[in-house]
Amino acid sequence: MARVPFETMQAVIAEAFLKAGLSRQDADICARVHTQASFDGIYSHGLNRVARFVDYVKRGWVDINAKPSLVKKIGAIEIYDGNRGIGILNAFAATDRAISIAAEQGVGIVALRNTTHWMRGGSYGWYAAEKGYVAISWTNTESCMPSWGSKEPSLGNNPFVMAVPRQKGHIVLDMAMSQYAYGKLQVTRLKGQQLPFPGGFDKNGNLTSEPGPIEESMRILPMGYWKGSGFAILLDTLAAVLSEGLATNEIDKIQQGSCTGCSQIFIMIDPRKLGGETYTNQVADSVVNYVNNSTPDENSKEVLYPGQMEVRVREEHLANGIVADDGVWAEVLALAGRRE
Amino acid sequence: MARVPFETMQAVIAEAFLKAGLSRQDADICARVHTQASFDGIYSHGLNRVARFVDYVKRGWVDINAKPSLVKKIGAIEIYDGNRGIGILNAFAATDRAISIAAEQGVGIVALRNTTHWMRGGSYGWYAAEKGYVAISWTNTESCMPSWGSKEPSLGNNPFVMAVPRQKGHIVLDMAMSQYAYGKLQVTRLKGQQLPFPGGFDKNGNLTSEPGPIEESMRILPMGYWKGSGFAILLDTLAAVLSEGLATNEIDKIQQGSCTGCSQIFIMIDPRKLGGETYTNQVADSVVNYVNNSTPDENSKEVLYPGQMEVRVREEHLANGIVADDGVWAEVLALAGRRE
Repeated sequence: MARVPFETMQAVIAEAFLKAGLSRQDADICARVHTQASFDGIYSHGLNRVARFVDYVKRGWVDINAKPSLVKKIGAIEIYDGNRGIGILNAFAATDRAISIAAEQGVGIVALRNTTHWMRGGSYGWYAAEKGYVAISWTNTESCMPSWGSKEPSLGNNPFVMAVPRQKGHIVLDMAMSQYAYGKLQVTRLKGQQLPFPGGFDKNGNLTSEPGPIEESMRILPMGYWKGSGFAILLDTLAAVLSEGLATNEIDKIQQGSCTGCSQIFIMIDPRKLGGETYTNQVADSVVNYVNNSTPDENSKEVLYPGQMEVRVREEHLANGIVADDGVWAEVLALAGRRE
Repeated sequence: MARVPFETMQAVIAEAFLKAGLSRQDADICARVHTQASFDGIYSHGLNRVARFVDYVKRGWVDINAKPSLVKKIGAIEIYDGNRGIGILNAFAATDRAISIAAEQGVGIVALRNTTHWMRGGSYGWYAAEKGYVAISWTNTESCMPSWGSKEPSLGNNPFVMAVPRQKGHIVLDMAMSQYAYGKLQVTRLKGQQLPFPGGFDKNGNLTSEPGPIEESMRILPMGYWKGSGFAILLDTLAAVLSEGLATNEIDKIQQGSCTGCSQIFIMIDPRKLGGETYTNQVADSVVNYVNNSTPDENSKEVLYPGQMEVRVREEHLANGIVADDGVWAEVLALAGRRE
């Protein structure tokens, strides 16, 4: 396992993206987002996702020259076509535009269609919170999970993000609709371990904590069983309806990797136009304190709020370098044209 | 078990509410909502909840004469104080107002604070969908569930509603953040049964499907473990921040039954201003068909979308009368001053 300083990782990823044909500016922005994901401990969408993005660019699944274009404007809602451009840049453009609308009108909604993988959804929640905005955002995806009561995938895991700005540390939720990601199943299987709780069904319909049989059956479990299944259905429908874009059943026909052609929603609200910054901090602090001060259970030393773990991981990574898998780091170094 | 026609149940509940002091009009609206909940199969918030509401009125926890008052207006967002009035009427007023704003501006948000129990959250989703609107709505509540990693309640179960209008049957999600309601634990225990999946921890921290030990420990499980816990925290924070109202930790201090003083959010969007009604139906149908046509698993005969079961139950109740517990029905008849 390597330990890589933030600046080094960002510079190397940017070189890899430059070699893939991105402009200097685009490469730098995307490299920062991937690096920040690893820095926050979300390795799956950080360094580990660089090679796949480069592959999508080479295959022409991501158009590195496309920019989002305005389709329609209705009050505080705007619809954009992502034109299959770079998912990170499209998502930032959508977030920035929704923030601009919210700065004027209190709330701003951008519905983005025909975009590509936004990588870590939490990126846009943290970004909005850093600017003082409340964010509610989600994406649909290709299907990877059965609806509740089915044994065949028909739902995306449709990551959902909520963020509230808070001076002492933003409260940020970033969750997919499956109980575990396929990446988590793979990592757990390679370690020869079991999942902490059942993660899906084997091919015979038995609920299991063994990752291998779930990877084989593709019967990954929605979080909360029927609840996560229902939530995924609504997120998908709403993303497609509001953006006049594709739902999961249509994304499945594209067959160009993960999330190509997907639909995303960015709702931004300016709390400074409501109760104000001091008030927002008071409320957010009271929620955080209630959670942090509740008695830990038998397996825990402390009780954390969403976003608190990321702050811890950042501090550790800042001191010791970002954790990076040796093989993955070597692969990205190679993509950057460096041999170390 | 009794079978009661819709009109009879509604009339009797309305009489009970009239006797509690509500105006004719208010009694009729509230009676319709309770009856519709039972009609849709959501018994816990239908007939079964009538006596508790009457009790709250008698104790002065619900002010039957209070009306919501406008606190602040910022673009498409309006904040109202519910003045501890009747939760159902406050929630309808908020929904109607958010719909009116959305009819003009595409999106409307009403944040309602200092209200009382809205009974079945889905009521407002179905209502909005019936009028052709997309709805995203939630409430916070007093704490009834530990945060993930804790053994002491610090979270509300914060019901969350999403609705998309669809000609062939609206898609409506209505879910609390706990895997099971305490009502479900009680019913399951009284039948001498186990929960279908683990529903919480016993007092020693063992995950269990036995309802009794969970009722005793108050360690009910968030849906999807850490995911439902995080979602509940964000819903609570956002409800309080946007409405400038109380968060769960402050509601807990009130000690006047369930949800008294709570904060609620109503986001309404008019899809007719976006892709239009035909387009919305096309997308919604495609999602529904994908789900309905996926292969059922070993335990299922069919795969349903959120809101589909309610339509089935309605048909059965229309033909045979609404299912009502004998004891509960007798209690409400007595509250209505009828002896049968």
